[in-house]
Amino acid sequence: MAQPLASTELTGLQKAIRWHPPSYDIRVDEVPIPRILHPDDAIVKVKLAALCGSDLHIYRGHGGVNAVHICGHEFIGEVVALGSSFVEEVNGRPALYSQLKVGHKIVSPFTSNCGECSVCRLGYTARCPEGFLFGSPALDGGQAQYVRVPKAGGTLFNLSEPSTWSSNMSKTERETALSKLSDSSLLVLADILPTGVFAALQTINHPKVQPVLTGRPWPLCFSPGIEGETLSVLQEDRVFTAAIIGLGPVGVCAAISLLDAVSTRSIPFRIIAIDPNESRRTKMQAVYDTIDESGKKGGDFAVLSIDDAKVKAKEWTHGVGCTAVLEVVGNPSALSLAYDLVRPFGVITSVGVHGEPPLPFNGREVYGKNVSLDFGRCPARAMFPPAFDLLVKRQDIFGGVGEASSLIDSIVSFDEAAASYSSFDKGEVGKVIFDPWK
Amino acid sequence: MAQPLASTELTGLQKAIRWHPPSYDIRVDEVPIPRILHPDDAIVKVKLAALCGSDLHIYRGHGGVNAVHICGHEFIGEVVALGSSFVEEVNGRPALYSQLKVGHKIVSPFTSNCGECSVCRLGYTARCPEGFLFGSPALDGGQAQYVRVPKAGGTLFNLSEPSTWSSNMSKTERETALSKLSDSSLLVLADILPTGVFAALQTINHPKVQPVLTGRPWPLCFSPGIEGETLSVLQEDRVFTAAIIGLGPVGVCAAISLLDAVSTRSIPFRIIAIDPNESRRTKMQAVYDTIDESGKKGGDFAVLSIDDAKVKAKEWTHGVGCTAVLEVVGNPSALSLAYDLVRPFGVITSVGVHGEPPLPFNGREVYGKNVSLDFGRCPARAMFPPAFDLLVKRQDIFGGVGEASSLIDSIVSFDEAAASYSSFDKGEVGKVIFDPWK
Repeated sequence: MAQPLASTELTGLQKAIRWHPPSYDIRVDEVPIPRILHPDDAIVKVKLAALCGSDLHIYRGHGGVNAVHICGHEFIGEVVALGSSFVEEVNGRPALYSQLKVGHKIVSPFTSNCGECSVCRLGYTARCPEGFLFGSPALDGGQAQYVRVPKAGGTLFNLSEPSTWSSNMSKTERETALSKLSDSSLLVLADILPTGVFAALQTINHPKVQPVLTGRPWPLCFSPGIEGETLSVLQEDRVFTAAIIGLGPVGVCAAISLLDAVSTRSIPFRIIAIDPNESRRTKMQAVYDTIDESGKKGGDFAVLSIDDAKVKAKEWTHGVGCTAVLEVVGNPSALSLAYDLVRPFGVITSVGVHGEPPLPFNGREVYGKNVSLDFGRCPARAMFPPAFDLLVKRQDIFGGVGEASSLIDSIVSFDEAAASYSSFDKGEVGKVIFDPWK
Repeated sequence: MAQPLASTELTGLQKAIRWHPPSYDIRVDEVPIPRILHPDDAIVKVKLAALCGSDLHIYRGHGGVNAVHICGHEFIGEVVALGSSFVEEVNGRPALYSQLKVGHKIVSPFTSNCGECSVCRLGYTARCPEGFLFGSPALDGGQAQYVRVPKAGGTLFNLSEPSTWSSNMSKTERETALSKLSDSSLLVLADILPTGVFAALQTINHPKVQPVLTGRPWPLCFSPGIEGETLSVLQEDRVFTAAIIGLGPVGVCAAISLLDAVSTRSIPFRIIAIDPNESRRTKMQAVYDTIDESGKKGGDFAVLSIDDAKVKAKEWTHGVGCTAVLEVVGNPSALSLAYDLVRPFGVITSVGVHGEPPLPFNGREVYGKNVSLDFGRCPARAMFPPAFDLLVKRQDIFGGVGEASSLIDSIVSFDEAAASYSSFDKGEVGKVIFDPWK
């Protein structure tokens, strides 16, 4: 095998979307093209970079930061320079340090991670002690013509060499899929689709959900050898009831992921997707209508406003509450609604980015309802295999741009950066992607 | 099969330990012997009734109640009267309505439950919509000579007929075990041992713990068919690290349960048991020393004060934090310590009874550490099978009274009720059992 191409670092200036304190100040600035700062770095030429709901925390000045920086944590691009750690023999380091080459197409998870500490090895890459969030004062983001990726051998996904990751598909199937997938659809791998899959997998694998899935009561669901008592779980108890709060792009991905998880497991379900914003509900409904029967069979799905959802949840759960609630907003009122909708011994899976406010329930309330809560950031790097499989399965949804059922509304140039942030902040547009070369 | 014995209800007065508002006022009162009020009721002659840490919430006036009532939610006794629902043919109702007879020995979980609604069928008996906590204004408790058990066919465990429940043991093994077990050891089935097993099973089955247990990174631990990437989980990552906060009787049971769960699964472990109270730590250590090698092999166990535990947790987890923390206290400072000790992507299992104060972490903190939290009351009725098996396995610990390694400190008469509540409240004694006939 040949050594990696000697990479020639670029010099000069590039265009980048930068946030300026204290708030609502987005500018396209001319800044230096990033250089290799550490042997593990890669420099990526950005093909597309997306605007994400969680970018709005900093945009609004609620992010607790005050330094000018390049925005954006969702990007796809091509490797243009590699540090000296990228060599033929890696001696136990992540394989990508030997496999990644200049010219390869990559997608990055929204945080960097080393890939070789205990946290990363266990798959919890989003909390690698050496990791950083792209698009923060600690690490410039991807809404630029070039971006520096630290710990690149642990962080990046190599889309040019499908043999470098695992999947339910064969290498050939993956190659075929990759040849068909557009860059804008692959970009959902950076954050929104893995985060949706993360929410669904946390929920479906939670111990409190197992009686519904296995048809064996708690705790016998964990002891296949022990016979149950005379009175056992009935078919009517085995309906998985869930609510998804927040139908932005991540919420829609969570809904798609949850529908896939229950339909592939043949679990009867009743799922309510909730958003106060009518245009988001319309998008969710259009996406649902696009999914073929095999992806939603065996259950009911309703897209509703908050008030209508409360009524429907009572009806569908016979007043008991939902087995699980996926909270995909990131504020106390969404968590409070989740608490109202969840059943006793139910699960709230929260992937929303939460800030300083206290949690909207006290000790008596969480004890009194036996609530389980899962918080936090998706380990997108680790979630890549199942997210990629789902992306291929749902190319109809992720492939389009600007159609009623597309998750992506438009691909615009940097000239529209400030206006796009502003209208996204006001809920006037859905997911926007920037093309730095347009 | 003969019809149940026609039961003759008792009349007249009995002695009962009652709480009087507003606080710290425990009296032994003469009150009427309870009568059958509903066809599903049973009247039980109490043999022994225990004092539990959660009784102190009401004792101290923090329980949010202000009505005089009979205390106690842990009791064992003998059926003396049954309502008219107890008949030979039950037509789909819980089997105990046909199996339970006057004269049978029973233990009750600390809450009543119908056993026939969807919540009960799924095993979540502690939150049955028709259930009540014994020893509350809604339902008189077991610290009396007689107690009324509502929904008795759904609530009670029949210790005279081991065929009426399931277990890892054969019927003969269970009969042999029951013939050896003292009433005071069987009484731990009412609350403290099932609650300990509940905490351990919630923890060990949590999705965030699975990479450590399976040796496959998240989320591949849920997809046995997919191969991992080159860099995989190492043996050193597969050490299950945990802390148990609070070493009252339930905390000790949680430690015994967790040790059993990890040693039977051959999971390497490092477990820290924490309490500021030295006498509780001494008891925990004596209990641990009593467990034979097979029940604790493959790991390290340390009993420590809070400050020492913080240092040890850093050392044992290489600064990352514990995979799981079991919180068995029920106040904000215990939860706050749990948050400090748990790793990113860790699990806090809280079985402490929490009150009005807010949770001691805000949205940013739980998001920032990817924390999972499981709150609430043990469904003791459903937990009976694994708790019984563990009781038999650990007869050495649960069998004794007043020894260094016994969970039960003393069996006293009602004359010592007020003094026992007072010294238990001050942490001067461990678990106290009342004999209403002494």
